[in-house]
Amino acid sequence: MTAHAPTEQLGPGTDLAEVFELAQQLRVDSVRASTSAGSGHPTSSLSAADLMAVLMARHLRYDWDDPGNPANDHLVFSKGHASPLLYAMFRAAGVVGEDELMRTYRRFGSRLQGHPTPVLPWVDVATGSLGQGIAYAVGIALAGRELERQPYRVWTLCGDSEMAEGSVWEALDKAGRHRLANFVAVVDVNRLGQCGPTELGWDTGAYARRAEAFGCRTITIDGHDLGAVDQALATAADDQAPTVVLARTVKGRGVSEVADQEGWHGKPLPEDLADRAVAELGGVRNLSVRGPRPPAGARATRPAARPAPLPRYDAGKDVATRSAFGKALAALGARPDVVVLDAEVGNSTHTEDFKKAHPERYFETYIAEQQMIATAVAMGVRGYRPYAATFAAFLTRAHDFIRMAAVSQVPMALCGSHCGVEIGADGPSQMGLEDLAMMRAVHGSTVLYPSDATSATALTAAMADLPGISYLRTTRGAYPVLYAPEENFPVGGSKTPRRSDHDTVTLVGAGVTLHECLAAADQLAADGIHARVVDLYCVKPVDAATLARAARETGALVIAEDHHPEGGLGEAVLSALSAERLAPAVAHLAVTVLPGSGTTAELLDDAGISRTHIARAARALTGGQGLP
Amino acid sequence: MTAHAPTEQLGPGTDLAEVFELAQQLRVDSVRASTSAGSGHPTSSLSAADLMAVLMARHLRYDWDDPGNPANDHLVFSKGHASPLLYAMFRAAGVVGEDELMRTYRRFGSRLQGHPTPVLPWVDVATGSLGQGIAYAVGIALAGRELERQPYRVWTLCGDSEMAEGSVWEALDKAGRHRLANFVAVVDVNRLGQCGPTELGWDTGAYARRAEAFGCRTITIDGHDLGAVDQALATAADDQAPTVVLARTVKGRGVSEVADQEGWHGKPLPEDLADRAVAELGGVRNLSVRGPRPPAGARATRPAARPAPLPRYDAGKDVATRSAFGKALAALGARPDVVVLDAEVGNSTHTEDFKKAHPERYFETYIAEQQMIATAVAMGVRGYRPYAATFAAFLTRAHDFIRMAAVSQVPMALCGSHCGVEIGADGPSQMGLEDLAMMRAVHGSTVLYPSDATSATALTAAMADLPGISYLRTTRGAYPVLYAPEENFPVGGSKTPRRSDHDTVTLVGAGVTLHECLAAADQLAADGIHARVVDLYCVKPVDAATLARAARETGALVIAEDHHPEGGLGEAVLSALSAERLAPAVAHLAVTVLPGSGTTAELLDDAGISRTHIARAARALTGGQGLP
Repeated sequence: MTAHAPTEQLGPGTDLAEVFELAQQLRVDSVRASTSAGSGHPTSSLSAADLMAVLMARHLRYDWDDPGNPANDHLVFSKGHASPLLYAMFRAAGVVGEDELMRTYRRFGSRLQGHPTPVLPWVDVATGSLGQGIAYAVGIALAGRELERQPYRVWTLCGDSEMAEGSVWEALDKAGRHRLANFVAVVDVNRLGQCGPTELGWDTGAYARRAEAFGCRTITIDGHDLGAVDQALATAADDQAPTVVLARTVKGRGVSEVADQEGWHGKPLPEDLADRAVAELGGVRNLSVRGPRPPAGARATRPAARPAPLPRYDAGKDVATRSAFGKALAALGARPDVVVLDAEVGNSTHTEDFKKAHPERYFETYIAEQQMIATAVAMGVRGYRPYAATFAAFLTRAHDFIRMAAVSQVPMALCGSHCGVEIGADGPSQMGLEDLAMMRAVHGSTVLYPSDATSATALTAAMADLPGISYLRTTRGAYPVLYAPEENFPVGGSKTPRRSDHDTVTLVGAGVTLHECLAAADQLAADGIHARVVDLYCVKPVDAATLARAARETGALVIAEDHHPEGGLGEAVLSALSAERLAPAVAHLAVTVLPGSGTTAELLDDAGISRTHIARAARALTGGQGLP
Repeated sequence: MTAHAPTEQLGPGTDLAEVFELAQQLRVDSVRASTSAGSGHPTSSLSAADLMAVLMARHLRYDWDDPGNPANDHLVFSKGHASPLLYAMFRAAGVVGEDELMRTYRRFGSRLQGHPTPVLPWVDVATGSLGQGIAYAVGIALAGRELERQPYRVWTLCGDSEMAEGSVWEALDKAGRHRLANFVAVVDVNRLGQCGPTELGWDTGAYARRAEAFGCRTITIDGHDLGAVDQALATAADDQAPTVVLARTVKGRGVSEVADQEGWHGKPLPEDLADRAVAELGGVRNLSVRGPRPPAGARATRPAARPAPLPRYDAGKDVATRSAFGKALAALGARPDVVVLDAEVGNSTHTEDFKKAHPERYFETYIAEQQMIATAVAMGVRGYRPYAATFAAFLTRAHDFIRMAAVSQVPMALCGSHCGVEIGADGPSQMGLEDLAMMRAVHGSTVLYPSDATSATALTAAMADLPGISYLRTTRGAYPVLYAPEENFPVGGSKTPRRSDHDTVTLVGAGVTLHECLAAADQLAADGIHARVVDLYCVKPVDAATLARAARETGALVIAEDHHPEGGLGEAVLSALSAERLAPAVAHLAVTVLPGSGTTAELLDDAGISRTHIARAARALTGGQGLP
């Protein structure tokens, strides 16, 4: 099972006999790579090898020497577990060598990971959570047509098992709605999933009816008939309609001992079987293929950032942070790289302000949060600065997409509105009470939680230049503006709106609880208790220095948050204090009840996070003692 | 706008003229209730009033005096924001009074919350996160047919906007696949969403093509033609096929000033407009309606719990906790109330062990995690003890359903396998690194994380009797059995497998990191450093007493977790210590890198959570000093 340097170069005019050889090479390399690694999915690669050989030799317009060419087509492996096939294609393209494939696949430190990630320059997005790649592909197709205005096509290879994911239908709905003629999904209907037969087996008709009902053109073929595949991909590339190619295939195709057999999902072939498989497939080949090139002369359309003047607010005026977010977004729209996505709540999150100012960069995904995030990720991949917003509670719907976006290391700004019991009468289904825990635990995330319009404005603007995933938590109700427009709100910082040299307790809050802390400080002051108040507008990374100083100087902290006690503001503070080995007396007030409907004041009080509870906790921590 | 006691009682034979009066009453009450509350969704209620009037008067077989009657039909308001309509129906049924409706709706302490929850005896599940109710309805229909074998039908009222959610198509796919002839979805196609026209407007044909492609029968009607509605519901109730009724309606129907107008979503009518609306609708009525009764003689089929002998493991043997989970589940199957749900990874999570033993109570939902959780919730609602399992990483896909299940206060056991970097070569897409944060932040949850087969077995069994949502985190690899079969593992407890009176540091771990802690303790012992080891098998509620004692006695803690640093084991420990006002020296080791592929040992080491790092951190905390 050794191989040598490429012996034959296949060009764009590659005929189908040569494509057959290429397909066999992809199979051989899929088997060899996974066997050498001792893990991986060879059989899922074998079923799709013919599809991908035809695609790369004759339809994928891609400059392998310049993956950044803005006119390059895109290929997203939605069935990311078929990475042996993808990496075999990279070897055939000459961008990954024999050694790298055979010696590093799935090993520590390798860029050829078990599932593809963008550490590889030819991979746009991380896949491996099924039902996601197709959603990103739709988003890239939308970006290509609506933002970049590039001629590229977006191809995605899907497994049949993943068609059971609702996210697939959110994606195809948008492909159909936007008539994304530059989008092609190729579904490898190999009939067998991880645990046995798939839900629909080889019923390509059922898949076709569904895809058509969602507004896509479908072409059903035998996925091992190279001529049929070629014709299908040519039709798909006619730029007439979003297309779903349903390819009936055989899992393990080409290796008679495993073909169409259950029990071979996700298993490398043992070495002896791998040897027989390679022999059956005609041995190791060293074909090199360069398919069609992208249209020449395309120029990068990645827009440059441009400064944007931001709204200013007068201190004391009541303004909701969600409103300030919307107005800041509208102003940020002066930057041509800023795009905004909505899940049909733009009049609640206030992204509608951006829509009014920049409708051409506002994308309505309707109530499909997974596709909203997927489109945001795709636009981030293409160099834009996406902001996606919905209720904080409903961002949980897209948690898996947010998690995977972190693996893709894409920049993306999220906003979750209507956090906490503060929202009042709508009740718990609409209350974000776990979003801080969700967003803090995202790899590399920044978590922001402004309390007033000035800070909300500054932080909204800051998100446009942050790496990775940033999150802004906004509040439904209007509260007084606390800061002058000149104030800075660095990421990782905090504010201390109330302090003295005699403080005996520190009240830590953000959002509505900051205003409750300020009111509590007033109550305490009336009793002669000096309370410092810290506005923790940045929950991750948290301002450990200010918290440590407050702990040292006052000895007691009351932390109040409109969130469940786990994973939010309180635990962020405790982590920071622990790192400094500080143990002030701490009262951690958070929502432990199951809330119902009511007014904001009633619900804050019922949850034990109101000014009354904060003041009471502070009195308890300080022994109730005021000034002498 | 006052009303009196019911003046006329409508029975099962109610004719359509009387139904018209009932529909107008539901409209009047929807307007009155939301105006009195000052918030709510009257226009979304007005569009569906005719549909619900026909349903409750002539088709819903329900004993309003006995909501626990096992033969009762079920009605799930997937468009939960139409709660004024639902509560108006309850008033018409005579189970909610005029005073309660008008004086408590959406107020603090009321059971008539902004969105329906099961604090009301006639509500099965909490709704309000769109696209979920239909999924629960499918689950209840499946439970009725496959488990309870009751004749009930499940009706669900959906909005048209929510049809954009992928979860809707996961649900209809399962309705079609299982041929759930006892399932009827009524879609209120009123054309207007929160922000304006919906994606598909009044294109009922598009909805019909989609629902049919997913295996459901469809009936398209004018949703205000009472005769057509009646005929459609009669057909839907013929027990021949899962049915989706697509009803073209007008948002705000019956109130000419708002009918089919944008800008009225989620807004109560101002009082003067409400007065005119009530007048236009014919004034306040006091009809009382009792529709068809359920078939007589149905007996509760809720199965009784039965003790189940559990597998026993010999100490020292290498067994994966995921394997122990599967075997424990299979044994627990002796309890006829235990049901298991899979998302096509049963051979990875080991739920397949249950499938082999009890195939009739094993439900394969394929790769549709949202529907898996929805079905589990539904079976929990119907008195069963559901266990649902997939990779920990992919439970994030269903986060919003888990969040809402907590609002429903339903018992449900979840298992997330393949947690952390421990899984090795598959890479980050498959690694659960945020599941502890997600599950700890769920209201009322219990979070378990066993390190060996004995504890995994005991905790799996314990979950069958826990209230609310419990979560078991399992590990891919096999590690030594640590405990004898007789050991108890109470929820809220911990184990201390290594301790002495001379301990100068405590190592806290769970899962793979507990085994790393034990190895580190061996290394430290060789240096003369006595390390206590705490097995934190219960992460929520956490064993604060044991941790506090360890902190007091040893003064230093190393906490190691195969999870991101936020919201997991470490912060659970810090919260517990803070409550005790303890500040031992703490080293918190967690996964801060973005992992790739590799072996378990390589990835644990790269993430800084291996035995080497634990021992190094312990030496640093103790000043490296061993015994004199």
